[in-house]
Amino acid sequence: MLIVQKFGGTSVANTDRIKNVARRVAKCRAEGHKLVVVVSAMSGVTDGLIKLAKEITPLPSEREMDMLLATGEQQTIALAAIALQTAGVPAVSLTGAQAGIVTDGVHTKAKIQNITPRQVHHLLDDGQVVIVAGFQGQTEEGQITTLGRGGSDLTAIALAAALNADLCQIYTDVDGVYTADPRIVPSAQKLAEISYDEMLELAGTGAKVMQLRSVEFAKKFKVVFEVRSSLNDNPGTLVKEETHSMESVVIRGVALDKNQAKITLVHVPHKPGVAARIFKAIGDAAINVDMIVQTAAVGAAEGTDISFTIDKPDLAKAQKLLESIQTDIGFKQAVAAENICKLSIVGVGMRSHSGVAAKMFESLANAGVNIDMISTSEIKISVVIDLAKGDTAMKAVHTAFLG
Amino acid sequence: MLIVQKFGGTSVANTDRIKNVARRVAKCRAEGHKLVVVVSAMSGVTDGLIKLAKEITPLPSEREMDMLLATGEQQTIALAAIALQTAGVPAVSLTGAQAGIVTDGVHTKAKIQNITPRQVHHLLDDGQVVIVAGFQGQTEEGQITTLGRGGSDLTAIALAAALNADLCQIYTDVDGVYTADPRIVPSAQKLAEISYDEMLELAGTGAKVMQLRSVEFAKKFKVVFEVRSSLNDNPGTLVKEETHSMESVVIRGVALDKNQAKITLVHVPHKPGVAARIFKAIGDAAINVDMIVQTAAVGAAEGTDISFTIDKPDLAKAQKLLESIQTDIGFKQAVAAENICKLSIVGVGMRSHSGVAAKMFESLANAGVNIDMISTSEIKISVVIDLAKGDTAMKAVHTAFLG
Repeated sequence: MLIVQKFGGTSVANTDRIKNVARRVAKCRAEGHKLVVVVSAMSGVTDGLIKLAKEITPLPSEREMDMLLATGEQQTIALAAIALQTAGVPAVSLTGAQAGIVTDGVHTKAKIQNITPRQVHHLLDDGQVVIVAGFQGQTEEGQITTLGRGGSDLTAIALAAALNADLCQIYTDVDGVYTADPRIVPSAQKLAEISYDEMLELAGTGAKVMQLRSVEFAKKFKVVFEVRSSLNDNPGTLVKEETHSMESVVIRGVALDKNQAKITLVHVPHKPGVAARIFKAIGDAAINVDMIVQTAAVGAAEGTDISFTIDKPDLAKAQKLLESIQTDIGFKQAVAAENICKLSIVGVGMRSHSGVAAKMFESLANAGVNIDMISTSEIKISVVIDLAKGDTAMKAVHTAFLG
Repeated sequence: MLIVQKFGGTSVANTDRIKNVARRVAKCRAEGHKLVVVVSAMSGVTDGLIKLAKEITPLPSEREMDMLLATGEQQTIALAAIALQTAGVPAVSLTGAQAGIVTDGVHTKAKIQNITPRQVHHLLDDGQVVIVAGFQGQTEEGQITTLGRGGSDLTAIALAAALNADLCQIYTDVDGVYTADPRIVPSAQKLAEISYDEMLELAGTGAKVMQLRSVEFAKKFKVVFEVRSSLNDNPGTLVKEETHSMESVVIRGVALDKNQAKITLVHVPHKPGVAARIFKAIGDAAINVDMIVQTAAVGAAEGTDISFTIDKPDLAKAQKLLESIQTDIGFKQAVAAENICKLSIVGVGMRSHSGVAAKMFESLANAGVNIDMISTSEIKISVVIDLAKGDTAMKAVHTAFLG
């Protein structure tokens, strides 16, 4: 089999851990597999480099930050190759550029445009383990770029797609994807498999095992990948296309996001284009909006109410922004709430099972939890509730659906 | 003017010093010059990376060491570009590879094969200050290489040659080249200019301002360069082709090398090929031999004596080696002396002035210094003397020739 393995920053945090990774890779190779290993920067290295740049200016050039930060992964690939060679395994390191990863020119958050893994193929054929720097690539013109948050996962999945690998393994510090956070719900179970869409919805609801973009990429190119722990040999969770058997499970998991804040705009004029203007202003300020709920306007004179959730750290910024556009837009008031959280259930099975929402709301009611906002998608139901009731609510819903 | 400036590791040791370099570069640019700036790794960074590799294995692969160490300079160029931009100067960083520096494939001590500075020209024309990573290049095949000791000086001088620069400035922590070490000879003076050959001989005699190879490269491609301090605005020493006026100065400088040891082989058989076998064995062991003196054989029966000097740290290794070949070669004994030093006078003028050696020996005699070995070249006279007499001897010779 051709396997792409990815190890994150904590898995390569020091030379002892790098040697550990080398042992794991050597063992897998001894089983007869061809291996491409993607590594992140040693944890702390990237932050240290950012700190140096900020000592010079709070707003360093993005092109130069890419030049600077790309060195972190380059150090890890060299050390990992040295560790593998020391373990008796032939290994060669490649920067993102050398591995043929071509991106657009949007520095610090470049998108992969194509991969020409000629060099990787050549080295694999030569019996080498190929160690590739995650998180980076270069433009057609030879500029060094980085892929932004979660970039190393993306490198691994994109390489797996380009190499037509049999499997892609994302090694991390969790065992896999769980039906709920085991620290809150002790009866939570590890999932053997999950569909891309479910993984996407879970990633978007606070169960942050992986960044959305890597899962989206995997879905687009049908890359089967496994999320598993670099600390033990337990099987992880396989993320793949939806299968028929997946639908027999009504919901896959429950996720709780305590990092949300809610804003309600009271008496928004009920005219075409108003919502667009509000959310364009918020988007331009790089504030991420998650749920948006607008209640049907009953009395057009008073306008309607619009509620939405954003990341808690963005709240002050958002309030300031809304103040500045209040007169222009003409809403009466912006009411903010920090003490909320978002509880979601996710599952492709809910498409074919009626009454899922009712069952969720009922279990919440029985647990004495009041629902503040509701938002649904085809395979997800999210509710906004009181932050203090979050854990209780999660347990209640998990018990109702998953035991 | 197009000027190439090179700043070493201590000049960029932290962000404050990098900001200092940026101020200096900005000032020079404000005077209307086009600038290419070559920087080394921040001092300590390279050693830290070597330490990481050695934690894994004492003998890491040289290819991977190049991959690892090249990150040091890459970090500095990014930070230097950020500092320049922050100072309001348009600046772009380039790795060795991006600057078009092509080397052979001898990892950790690659030689520059050619430079295609298309990108550098393009950026200069665009009004940018171009910051280039010293010490590194890439092979035709895209492998990252490093140039070995003194590599950043070499990058600067090679770029100056390829760009046909008007001047190359090597910024370091000394003010320039002196007639003698000012810490030993208080009357020593900074030289306004010096010829390549004199600089080479001085570099080879303990006045280690720069590595030999960079001076050789400059000589070969006729690159005029200035050695000057990054800590003040004093003019430095211009290193250039020999001019007629240089010959009117009999000697340029006095150098003292306390890092030498002497070995005398007693009663070496006086047969063809013996010396070759001895020095081949020593060369194969990577021990650098400096002076070699063989006294004329008078009584062929007893053989001749051969004395030579090596770097002091290599003495034990050399003694062991000589022991192992003693029977085979057939010399009687190897006598080692650590308490010696080498005193040299250098100057293109001595070619046209007779009596220079006599004057040197006389000044040593007057100072009560006994001469142990003598070796001469066209523009240099070196003597081996007692280590304890080194400083006295240097002062005496400096006074005799340079006041």
